[in-house]
Amino acid sequence: MAENRKYNFAVVGATGAVGQKIIQKLEEKNLPIESLKLLSSKRSAGKKVHFKNQEIIVEEATDDSFKDIDIALFSAGGGVSKRFAPSAVKHGAVVIDNTSAYRMDENVPLVVPEVNEEDIKNHKGIIANPNCSTIQMVAALKPIQEAFGLSRVIVSTYQAVSGAGNQAVEELEKQSEQYLNKQELNAEILPVKGDKNHYPIAFNALPQIDMFQENGYTFEEMKMINETKKIMHAPELSVAATCVRLPFFTSHAESVYVEVEKSNVSVKDVWEVLASAEGVKLEDDPSTQTYPTPLSASNKDEVFVGRVRKDLDQETGFHMWVVSDNLLKGAAWNTVQIAESLIKNNWLK
Amino acid sequence: MAENRKYNFAVVGATGAVGQKIIQKLEEKNLPIESLKLLSSKRSAGKKVHFKNQEIIVEEATDDSFKDIDIALFSAGGGVSKRFAPSAVKHGAVVIDNTSAYRMDENVPLVVPEVNEEDIKNHKGIIANPNCSTIQMVAALKPIQEAFGLSRVIVSTYQAVSGAGNQAVEELEKQSEQYLNKQELNAEILPVKGDKNHYPIAFNALPQIDMFQENGYTFEEMKMINETKKIMHAPELSVAATCVRLPFFTSHAESVYVEVEKSNVSVKDVWEVLASAEGVKLEDDPSTQTYPTPLSASNKDEVFVGRVRKDLDQETGFHMWVVSDNLLKGAAWNTVQIAESLIKNNWLK
Repeated sequence: MAENRKYNFAVVGATGAVGQKIIQKLEEKNLPIESLKLLSSKRSAGKKVHFKNQEIIVEEATDDSFKDIDIALFSAGGGVSKRFAPSAVKHGAVVIDNTSAYRMDENVPLVVPEVNEEDIKNHKGIIANPNCSTIQMVAALKPIQEAFGLSRVIVSTYQAVSGAGNQAVEELEKQSEQYLNKQELNAEILPVKGDKNHYPIAFNALPQIDMFQENGYTFEEMKMINETKKIMHAPELSVAATCVRLPFFTSHAESVYVEVEKSNVSVKDVWEVLASAEGVKLEDDPSTQTYPTPLSASNKDEVFVGRVRKDLDQETGFHMWVVSDNLLKGAAWNTVQIAESLIKNNWLK
Repeated sequence: MAENRKYNFAVVGATGAVGQKIIQKLEEKNLPIESLKLLSSKRSAGKKVHFKNQEIIVEEATDDSFKDIDIALFSAGGGVSKRFAPSAVKHGAVVIDNTSAYRMDENVPLVVPEVNEEDIKNHKGIIANPNCSTIQMVAALKPIQEAFGLSRVIVSTYQAVSGAGNQAVEELEKQSEQYLNKQELNAEILPVKGDKNHYPIAFNALPQIDMFQENGYTFEEMKMINETKKIMHAPELSVAATCVRLPFFTSHAESVYVEVEKSNVSVKDVWEVLASAEGVKLEDDPSTQTYPTPLSASNKDEVFVGRVRKDLDQETGFHMWVVSDNLLKGAAWNTVQIAESLIKNNWLK
C-alpha cells in the first residue's frame, strides 16, 4: 500500500438503507478517503448527507460521474449496477457491487473477506458483495469447513424487513400500529415489491423472499445455495435453504444444520474453532441462557453463533443459530471490508 | 355409541388461553354434553364463562370435583394434571391431558386422531394431547410416511407467543407499543416464565422455548423429537428440532425437511397424498404466491402445508412449510377431537 495515499470514493445508492450504512462505516472505520461522491437516482438527487465534518450533496448518477473515482460502492439495485458499473470500470474505478447483478458471473469474485479474501486480487474491475443471508452463514461455516470438512448444509432463515429496503421497514411500523389499534392491515410492499400479491408482515411470517423460480425455490433461496458454493470454493457441497421474512427490523437469524466430514467431532471442538474465527463471536451458554438474537446483534459488525449442539442421530451432524446485522456484516460492513482489503493489499489495479 | 347418551364434562384450566378455546370448540362442534363443569385454581374461581345459553361459574378444582364426571379435559399446567388427574380417574372419568405431565408415560396413549386414533382404545384412564408444535408436524408427516416411508426429519420452528400463555400475549402487545413509542422494552415473561433471564420478544426472535436440558436442547425441542417418534410408532425415525419463539400472536409455522424411503417420488406425488389427507389442507402454488402464513391459518382447524419442493442434492429429500393454529389443532381442537373419538367409538371404559 502506498503510504499515505488517499482514494476517491463514490457511493451509488447513497440514500438507501444500505447506502446510509456504507457512508457510516466509511467514516467510522476511517478509510483513507481523499474525496467522497454520493450518487443516486434523479429522485433522490439534491439531498444532503453528513460525512465527517462536511455536508455532501447527493448527485444524480450519470456515465460521467465516475471520472477520477478509484473505488465505487454500488448499492442501488441490480438494474443500476448493470447500467453504471461498466462506465465506472471504463473510467478506471474498481466497483464493489452490493446487488445480485454480477455475483454469479465467473469473471467476478464474490467475497467475504474472512472466507475468501484472496479472490479479490483476481478482479477485473468488479467485485461482488454476497447476499446478506449468505454472508453471515459462510462466515460461520468457513472455520468449520477448514477444521473438520463440510459435506452438507440445511438452513432455515429468520430475516428482518430491512433486507427489503426502507419501504418495507416503514410498512412493518405502520402495520404494527394498525394491528395494535385493531385496524385493517394495509399491505403494499412485502413479501416482494415487484410481485403480484402483497401480504401483511406485522405479527406474521412470510415464507417468500424475492420471486419464485420454476423449481419452486425463491431467488433468495437459490442465492444462498449458489453463492455459498462459489464463496467457499465447494461446488460439491450440498446446500438447501428455506427463507422466511419476519416482523423485526434488523438482523437476520439462521437455524443451520451441518454435516462435517470428520468423525468424533464434539460440540467443544466446534466451539473452539468458532471462538477463534475472525469476524465470528461465539455466544453460547445454555446454563446462563446465552445466545444471540436479532435485537442483541443489531448495530454490531460480528457474526454471532450460539445454540451449537450435536445431532442426536447423525454422528457428524451439528445444529447452530447464526445471527448478524443484515445491513452491516450482511451488506455495508462487508462492502467496506472489501474496500479496505483492496487498499491494504494494493489490489486496486 | 349409546344413542342419545350425553356426557358430563369438566374442563380444568377453564380461564386459560387453551381452556377458553376448548370451551369454544365444545360448543361449536356440538358434543353430546349433559353438563359442563369449569374448574380452575383458587385465584380464578368465581369467574363467569358463557357456554351455549348458560353462564357457568368457574369453581376451584378439588379432589371431589370429578364425582360423576365422564370426560375431564385438563389444560392448567403439568403440576395441576399430576395433582388432580389421578383423582379424576379414581372417580371414573377419562382424562384428556393437554400438558406434558403424562405424554411420555408408556401407559398413556399420546394421540393425534388423524395419525394414531386407534391408540385411544388402550387408555387406562388418561390420554395425552401432544405438544402444539408436534401435533401439526405429525399431521403433515403421517400421509407422507404411509405413502413413501420416512427416515429423517429436520425441523426449524417459528412459534407464536400464545403458546406461552396469556401473559406472553400481553407482553408482546405491551412491548410492541413500547418499541413503536421508542420506550425501553420491559421483559418479564419470555422466553420462559420460570427461567432466570427474560428477553424482549417484540421485533425479535428468541431461540429458546422451555428450559434447557443437559444436552443443549430445550425441552420443547426434545418434546418434538420424542413425541413424534411415539405418535408415529417410529422409534427408529431420525428427528431433529430447533424451536424459536417469534413476535406473532397465533399459529406456529415450521420449516420441515424430510427424507422418504422410496425413490423417484415427485413433488406432485407429495402434493397428492397431502391433498387427500384428513385434517390437512394443501395451499401450495408458487405461481400465485399461495402458501400458508400464521395470520392466514389463525382460527382454523386444519394443518396447512405449502412450499413443497424437492431437495436439489438429496433425491429422497423434500422441504415443506407447515402452519396451524397452535391453540386449536395444536391444543383445544385436538383435545376435543380425542373426546369425540372416545364417544363415537365407545372407548370411554
